[in-house]
Amino acid sequence: MQIPGPYLLFLGDTPHRLDAKTASGILDWRPELCAGQCRLDANTVDLGLPDMSPSAAAAAGAHTLVVGVAAFGGVLDAAWIDTLLAAIRAGLNIASGMHMRLRDNAAIVAAAHEAGVQLFDVRHADRRFDVASGRKRSGYRLLTVGVDCAVGKKYAALAIHRAFATRGIAADFRATGQTGILIAGGGVAIDAVVSDFAAGAAESLSPDNAPDHWDVIEGQGSLFHPAYAGVSLALLHGSQPDALVLCHDTRRTHIDGYPDYPLPTLAECIAANERAARLTNRAARCVAVALNTFGMSETERERAFAATREETGLVVFDPIATSADAVVETLLAFGTNAYDSDQRDVACNQLGRAYNDKKNHCTA
Amino acid sequence: MQIPGPYLLFLGDTPHRLDAKTASGILDWRPELCAGQCRLDANTVDLGLPDMSPSAAAAAGAHTLVVGVAAFGGVLDAAWIDTLLAAIRAGLNIASGMHMRLRDNAAIVAAAHEAGVQLFDVRHADRRFDVASGRKRSGYRLLTVGVDCAVGKKYAALAIHRAFATRGIAADFRATGQTGILIAGGGVAIDAVVSDFAAGAAESLSPDNAPDHWDVIEGQGSLFHPAYAGVSLALLHGSQPDALVLCHDTRRTHIDGYPDYPLPTLAECIAANERAARLTNRAARCVAVALNTFGMSETERERAFAATREETGLVVFDPIATSADAVVETLLAFGTNAYDSDQRDVACNQLGRAYNDKKNHCTA
Repeated sequence: MQIPGPYLLFLGDTPHRLDAKTASGILDWRPELCAGQCRLDANTVDLGLPDMSPSAAAAAGAHTLVVGVAAFGGVLDAAWIDTLLAAIRAGLNIASGMHMRLRDNAAIVAAAHEAGVQLFDVRHADRRFDVASGRKRSGYRLLTVGVDCAVGKKYAALAIHRAFATRGIAADFRATGQTGILIAGGGVAIDAVVSDFAAGAAESLSPDNAPDHWDVIEGQGSLFHPAYAGVSLALLHGSQPDALVLCHDTRRTHIDGYPDYPLPTLAECIAANERAARLTNRAARCVAVALNTFGMSETERERAFAATREETGLVVFDPIATSADAVVETLLAFGTNAYDSDQRDVACNQLGRAYNDKKNHCTA
Repeated sequence: MQIPGPYLLFLGDTPHRLDAKTASGILDWRPELCAGQCRLDANTVDLGLPDMSPSAAAAAGAHTLVVGVAAFGGVLDAAWIDTLLAAIRAGLNIASGMHMRLRDNAAIVAAAHEAGVQLFDVRHADRRFDVASGRKRSGYRLLTVGVDCAVGKKYAALAIHRAFATRGIAADFRATGQTGILIAGGGVAIDAVVSDFAAGAAESLSPDNAPDHWDVIEGQGSLFHPAYAGVSLALLHGSQPDALVLCHDTRRTHIDGYPDYPLPTLAECIAANERAARLTNRAARCVAVALNTFGMSETERERAFAATREETGLVVFDPIATSADAVVETLLAFGTNAYDSDQRDVACNQLGRAYNDKKNHCTA
């Protein structure tokens, strides 16, 4: 799946910026992909892009209308459908990350067929995946993992990818959720894959690569989430990460939406993820913590960073407010070969953390 | 899904008993459900049931032809389809656990529609599942878990269910794979559920029940399997088991089909499963080990049992060669209330195993 840009970001009629987080995410990370926004009325959230009708966007060179807003209950209302049909007739492809498929709407399918444009249901894989092989692949991999859902795993991965790219280091961002896929233009919505094949889908997402290439993989869910831990574990095993980055929001006190599930400590979360990851890559190590400090003053942020550094002994950063440079420096400090051999253990121990492979060998 | 019996077991033309393990499984556990067998030629494996054509089976009172054999590559060959069509015309429903759906074969669908019979693709759920809620449900639950795939999790669960039933204790066998579903007449093929909903599907499989009722749930995969651990974890979290039974084949040296993946020790496997299970049920405990001792002499079996008892301190049994009575006695010895409160910890400690909830709190 490769979604042609530039995009026209469709915002429907939602007045809430939070409902437009897919559109915001694309604009935050790929502004060059965003030709304009399409809003159904004046109360609709404004991302500050030029307002365009579908036909104006097509004339301006846009190739795909992206549904950048979550529809309540996943249902497309009639006003939306008229706009999508107009976009199709104007020659735009349509991309959507909704659970409800574009392909299940007969009018949209017929119009797309007639206009010769493509429909991208990015939450639904078009292809079948193999069962995971467990075979170790070449190249380096980093996976962001979470204490909970919605704590910044996608933004952390994007920031780390950008820090690699800025230094001219070969790296790819690998998307595993709908917004990430629209940002990257491709990927696999791992939570929409049949569970037997989820680890295999994760394997296919970061294939063999050059020995010094980094795949920076967007994590999903949390091993401590009562509904999604299976998704997280399949992604962890299939990704075979060399490096893990734990993502956290220090203001979160329990699993979001699950008040009976208190958050684990960072130490528990790091230990559980490393233990599980070592099933498919015994060198897997957590190297950094990404904190979501949105809304904090600089003093509060510095205090949160210091406390987390103290607690974990790891590099701490915020993917938005600060920079991921220190993560990349840490990874590079391991040396080119450090991730290929037992030297990884040595390199990691030099970072001041004691590991005991034997003790931590058992997984999950 | 409730599949009407009795069954006609369709064996195709396979000469290998191992390929007929779905049919064998049904016959081993539900002989009263098996009206006869249907074989395409004289070289086909013989389960010792009366040979019947579909029309003879229908006349004898059978209600469903069950595809009891794995087709190579999951493809239905022409000779099979003719027999399935004949069965449909004779008024039999068709049930299949193959990856390839009966519903995707136009001739079969048309014939079933005309004859007014049902098609059961037991590997594919007809319904949508909710995301798991994590809410603790009433009643007791036991889940069989594995060191690897294909070590006897289904047979262990069936044997324990039978031991409960023999004592007149209210219990249900809950099937999570195709053969189990055909044995039980219902269930959910958990590995065929979209990964986002796998834990939710597991929750729906063992709903709230009477406080002294036991659901005995068929496990899937292994937390140490590089392809299927995510399935196992989702099932473990959604099942909220009070009791775990670890299933093992002492002759297995590595994950089947994955020579680079050595088996964990039983202690590692028990610790990993208990740690993960305690996310959704903090009282979860491993209470027994089921050994597959097929082909061993009595002396060899006794030696294997003794070694496993020594290693784990747990009850050891073989679901086929011996009996699951000791497992049920162990569970009942906890007392009616033991599984409802902190007394569970006390009861478990009385069994001679030391637990440290704090240390083992972190999961996955």
